[in-house]
Amino acid sequence: MELGSGGTSARPAAEPGSHLSAGLSVAAVLPAGGRGERLGGATPKQFCTLLGRPLISYTVRALERISWISDIVVVVTLENIETMKSIVEKYGHKQITVVEGGVSRHRSIFNGLKIFPESKLSSCPLQKPEVVIIHDAVRPFVEEDILLKVVLAAKEHGAAGAIRPLVSTVVASSADGCLDHSLERARYRASEMPQAFLFDIIYQAYHQCSDYDLDYGTECLHLALKYCKTNVKLIEGSPDLWKVTYKRDLYAAESIIKDNLSQQVCVITEMKEDAVQLGFLLHETLKSQVKVKGISVFLCKNDNHLQNIFLGQCYNFICINAKKSDFQETQHFVDIIENASISVLHPVVLISVHLNVSENMAFSSGMEELAGIKEFAREVKKKNILVYGLLIHYNKDNPKLQETINSAAAIISALIKDRNPELIGQLLVA
Amino acid sequence: MELGSGGTSARPAAEPGSHLSAGLSVAAVLPAGGRGERLGGATPKQFCTLLGRPLISYTVRALERISWISDIVVVVTLENIETMKSIVEKYGHKQITVVEGGVSRHRSIFNGLKIFPESKLSSCPLQKPEVVIIHDAVRPFVEEDILLKVVLAAKEHGAAGAIRPLVSTVVASSADGCLDHSLERARYRASEMPQAFLFDIIYQAYHQCSDYDLDYGTECLHLALKYCKTNVKLIEGSPDLWKVTYKRDLYAAESIIKDNLSQQVCVITEMKEDAVQLGFLLHETLKSQVKVKGISVFLCKNDNHLQNIFLGQCYNFICINAKKSDFQETQHFVDIIENASISVLHPVVLISVHLNVSENMAFSSGMEELAGIKEFAREVKKKNILVYGLLIHYNKDNPKLQETINSAAAIISALIKDRNPELIGQLLVA
Repeated sequence: MELGSGGTSARPAAEPGSHLSAGLSVAAVLPAGGRGERLGGATPKQFCTLLGRPLISYTVRALERISWISDIVVVVTLENIETMKSIVEKYGHKQITVVEGGVSRHRSIFNGLKIFPESKLSSCPLQKPEVVIIHDAVRPFVEEDILLKVVLAAKEHGAAGAIRPLVSTVVASSADGCLDHSLERARYRASEMPQAFLFDIIYQAYHQCSDYDLDYGTECLHLALKYCKTNVKLIEGSPDLWKVTYKRDLYAAESIIKDNLSQQVCVITEMKEDAVQLGFLLHETLKSQVKVKGISVFLCKNDNHLQNIFLGQCYNFICINAKKSDFQETQHFVDIIENASISVLHPVVLISVHLNVSENMAFSSGMEELAGIKEFAREVKKKNILVYGLLIHYNKDNPKLQETINSAAAIISALIKDRNPELIGQLLVA
Repeated sequence: MELGSGGTSARPAAEPGSHLSAGLSVAAVLPAGGRGERLGGATPKQFCTLLGRPLISYTVRALERISWISDIVVVVTLENIETMKSIVEKYGHKQITVVEGGVSRHRSIFNGLKIFPESKLSSCPLQKPEVVIIHDAVRPFVEEDILLKVVLAAKEHGAAGAIRPLVSTVVASSADGCLDHSLERARYRASEMPQAFLFDIIYQAYHQCSDYDLDYGTECLHLALKYCKTNVKLIEGSPDLWKVTYKRDLYAAESIIKDNLSQQVCVITEMKEDAVQLGFLLHETLKSQVKVKGISVFLCKNDNHLQNIFLGQCYNFICINAKKSDFQETQHFVDIIENASISVLHPVVLISVHLNVSENMAFSSGMEELAGIKEFAREVKKKNILVYGLLIHYNKDNPKLQETINSAAAIISALIKDRNPELIGQLLVA
């Protein structure tokens, strides 16, 4: 499985759709009026939280980060309009219009399309796009690649949609609940999202279709084919287009997001010999031993360096404090993270590493001061920063040093992968 | 979603299929020869590990725990026969026969069926069953309920299989990759597993079907219908029948297993006033605050009590040691867990709680002795027991006591849910 980036990869190098922004106007409609009965919970699935953030915010982010999508229309039920607006505000989403849905999926999408004015009005910030993407609020891992493909195919053919191979054989049942026939799996595909349409085509299809279609239909491609005789291009998508449908899908989505967030770690040290050496050893071990892409930056309060780290969208920091009983460096770094606003979308893990350098010093001495880390961690958790303490017995002449470093790397890796908010402020020992 | 028990619920009370064991002989064939290309990894998905144990062992366990299934035939590729045999041995699976598969799914199932002798041979321990269940190795959460339904329907009709509603619309594409038509979702179902057949019917169907069927077919129900004109009953199953297909499904499966394992916790204390009081408070808080079904047992080394806990299949224990610097109680309890063999199938979490009762005592004193918990935890991890330390500042007159207990309950709940093997031997502070 190719893991979707879920909004974590900025991809500044590749801009596959950059030519679009000039030539083609593209907007997106995100129907999010579902009630999530299949999930079995009280909260509709698009509002269930993953790492504290509602699922729909991940999906909005996945579309929003794409430069050539100008507007995103989110369609929700009347009772969720305020919820949705507060999500947009809290997570700083841009170019979002929240629209009230209808009683069915098709009516909701139609409502979303209707807000684009027929002609250019100076009073309305929205402009009718040439191509409109329709995507599900509960498919957060959509990538630019497939969006671009369906948009370009829609521009050429009039309509296009992502498909996937069938996972199970499809059967038709007779009236008495017995097998009538099974379909030949190779001939059929599952129709997924995103789909894209020339705006005028899907708009016309919705105007012409029957009430029965509007109330019971589920497939936009079908409407375009039936009412506009449009050629509908089908495009093979990747597995990460899957739709969060059941509780197990929420589990899977959370694990994928955690996995994405744990890909990069940044090591920051004070400019003191022991700290720098330990930083180097940790960096090397993390790089080779666990699947963590290491960026080691030795910080001299140089903001250019930090800017680069944040552009690379790193959500994990190891801050090495030379003194055992001190976490000023960590405290300073919390301010930097906060100012850079990187913890708005995802919880940031900050591991405050403390060195215990003296061979003869008892395990416990100096621990009193570190007890304060708990209070500190509780405070910064409000900023979506998860602070954990890690004490490393460091003696560069100890033949067991590498063993200690390995243990530290394993603990760091576990903390980054779990992002467990209940364990913040704990002082772990490598 | 109804969470599948994944082998964790023994259900001694309900025996829905107990009448079967007398009247009807049932065996199961588990084709496990797939190469898991869709997963994108080197290891076929049925051998991927979840909490250290291969997926197929969970599925075998789900069938094995059902009293009225007499034999389970697992069909694997030649190169995996030894792997499968070692899994059977390591996890103590019973009544398993490992058989070499063919080049296709159907040929593998056919091989599995062939090992049941035509007539009763005293030399062969296997007996031809009246009904045979066919299930997938990668559907570990199958429940007795649906197995019973398909078996009874197969007995009545000749063949039966589980179905589920379609999650996506199914479309047919034309030769040029465009939409030909979409199927009306309500008329079709996804065919899932388990399926069951009168043995003679499916055996005959395999004998009569074409090489093309054997090489390219995927659906056993189809063969029974086509070659034996059998009525095939379709039975609506629950969402937990889903098939582990992609990497995200492994994530979901692991989360479900962890969720199942974290449903029950047992509190064990020394018979000392402070410890018993703390045990009571923890029990009450865990019960109300987090979704943990609490069983509190105050242990007097009474083996009858313990037997009941193990029968209830509890995998989480909180062991309260009255003295801060001592974990003999914990050590004693590790022996009990080991003797009861409960950590064979699942990692057991054992939280060693230590009281810090003196108000004036420094945070750190007595910590040296507890440092030994790390070595101890590393040792017992080899027995699949995960030991974590938890220090609670306990003073029954402290107005902030409930706050401390809440913090302890949150940490306990997090440790139980994550089951992170990298954090064993750490001493957390509530």
